[in-house]
Amino acid sequence: MTIVDKPIVWVGSTRTDGVNAADRGLAFGDGLFETMRCQSGVIPLLDLHLARLRKGCDVLLFDDIELYLSDVIEQLMAELSSLPVGLYSVKLIVTRGIGGRGYAPPDTPSPPTFMLRATAFEDDLIKRDQGVVLQLCRRQLSLCPSLAGIKHLNRFEYVLAAKEFLGPVGAQGLLTDVNGRVVEGLHHNIFLVRRGELITPRLVMCGVAGVMRQLIVERLAPELGLIVKQQDLSIDDLIGAQEVFLCNSLHGIWPVSEFLSSSWGVGAVTQRLQASVARIWCGTDES
Amino acid sequence: MTIVDKPIVWVGSTRTDGVNAADRGLAFGDGLFETMRCQSGVIPLLDLHLARLRKGCDVLLFDDIELYLSDVIEQLMAELSSLPVGLYSVKLIVTRGIGGRGYAPPDTPSPPTFMLRATAFEDDLIKRDQGVVLQLCRRQLSLCPSLAGIKHLNRFEYVLAAKEFLGPVGAQGLLTDVNGRVVEGLHHNIFLVRRGELITPRLVMCGVAGVMRQLIVERLAPELGLIVKQQDLSIDDLIGAQEVFLCNSLHGIWPVSEFLSSSWGVGAVTQRLQASVARIWCGTDES
Repeated sequence: MTIVDKPIVWVGSTRTDGVNAADRGLAFGDGLFETMRCQSGVIPLLDLHLARLRKGCDVLLFDDIELYLSDVIEQLMAELSSLPVGLYSVKLIVTRGIGGRGYAPPDTPSPPTFMLRATAFEDDLIKRDQGVVLQLCRRQLSLCPSLAGIKHLNRFEYVLAAKEFLGPVGAQGLLTDVNGRVVEGLHHNIFLVRRGELITPRLVMCGVAGVMRQLIVERLAPELGLIVKQQDLSIDDLIGAQEVFLCNSLHGIWPVSEFLSSSWGVGAVTQRLQASVARIWCGTDES
Repeated sequence: MTIVDKPIVWVGSTRTDGVNAADRGLAFGDGLFETMRCQSGVIPLLDLHLARLRKGCDVLLFDDIELYLSDVIEQLMAELSSLPVGLYSVKLIVTRGIGGRGYAPPDTPSPPTFMLRATAFEDDLIKRDQGVVLQLCRRQLSLCPSLAGIKHLNRFEYVLAAKEFLGPVGAQGLLTDVNGRVVEGLHHNIFLVRRGELITPRLVMCGVAGVMRQLIVERLAPELGLIVKQQDLSIDDLIGAQEVFLCNSLHGIWPVSEFLSSSWGVGAVTQRLQASVARIWCGTDES
């Protein structure tokens, strides 16, 4: 039995048998998650994932996560090193643990609960090389600035948008907010290229600030001499863009080949960024 | 070992040992809950709770809940009948079960997961008879009309509002929305009395439409010949009200004795409604 078959659970940093049905993750979605790419036991962007997780814990007023996190990550890496060779999607959930009177967490914090699961997957080379069709989701995201950007467990709007999504096989959903602004893909962040500049939504009102998005903004684009802007984007901005692509830490960068009345080949900027991601994933990036 | 010590779990209508760490309730807050008052094995407002649960399942596009719900409720009532005599808060959580690719639920629905826990409690007669201090929560609720009123598991804003709440012991938090409109208490709905009429917020943009609120609006107030309105309310409306009270299905009706610059005794309308609730709880209400 491995983590591929069954999630494993820690309470604090102690391995346990299962999740307590009184866990606050279940009661209130009171937790966070990370979905990470793992190849040959290595998570190339682990540092970024952990930094985001810590930031989420700060925003959500989690106490004392540092008492346990390093220990759990060490055990997690040991688990991953014992997996059969291959590519895995590794999902880590962290909750505030059990206890408290109703919504209020207990005055004396419970240890957090950590859950880990690995799922084998393969890169979709067709999507990477030829792009994907992008299609608007009917449901629009509400505005919640205090939780914007955080990868927390209150994901009902995404679940419902995904369930309602009726695109053709392989098509990706595009989420807008209630004001019609472009936010992200259902499972990805989104960038466009306009006059040679990269632009991605600001994500201050809603949305999930992905680790691959951060890597592109803070490192890959600057390395390639590209200007990156975070600003409000409309559907029309997408339609009129030179290039559009989706990104996340599992898939890397998927070009968008079609959206409403527009279609695109795989653009030069997109290809250069894809090459940068490939170098990082192979461990040949030396920067 | 009873449900007072440890939650019990069903997958579909089959009793199981624990919660699967891959449950969608944990992954995405993909579920609903009810918190019910139970006395001598009886839940006086069970029908209203089940109706709200069913409505929530509709809004959240749960499939096939009816295949399991009656069975589970029958088992739940059997569990409750075996409890030691007393008053209990009974919490039922229902999730969409496991499975699916990311946010999207599986095409073939999994059976839902049901979790049940009972906690002994006592009526707080001082709060009931003398009222409570109401104090504004700093955090304001975001607007999400598609999920407004539903008692779903995406409760981060409430958790954070409760954690931040610094009122004196026994004080109750008042939640407003991002536009400053009055929504509800942290754990209750809210009513005011103005010119003899009952008014409660509409809850079309956010908030939880409680079962006790529904009982008052649809039955208790009409029985007493009171006009009830659901409309937008401001902080100033509360301050200027003749009476203000909180309500939920556990506590019944708690008068508000103090809020900002205002203070109140226990008003006549509040007392008449309290008497109606007491009759229903005692089973002496014959309507």
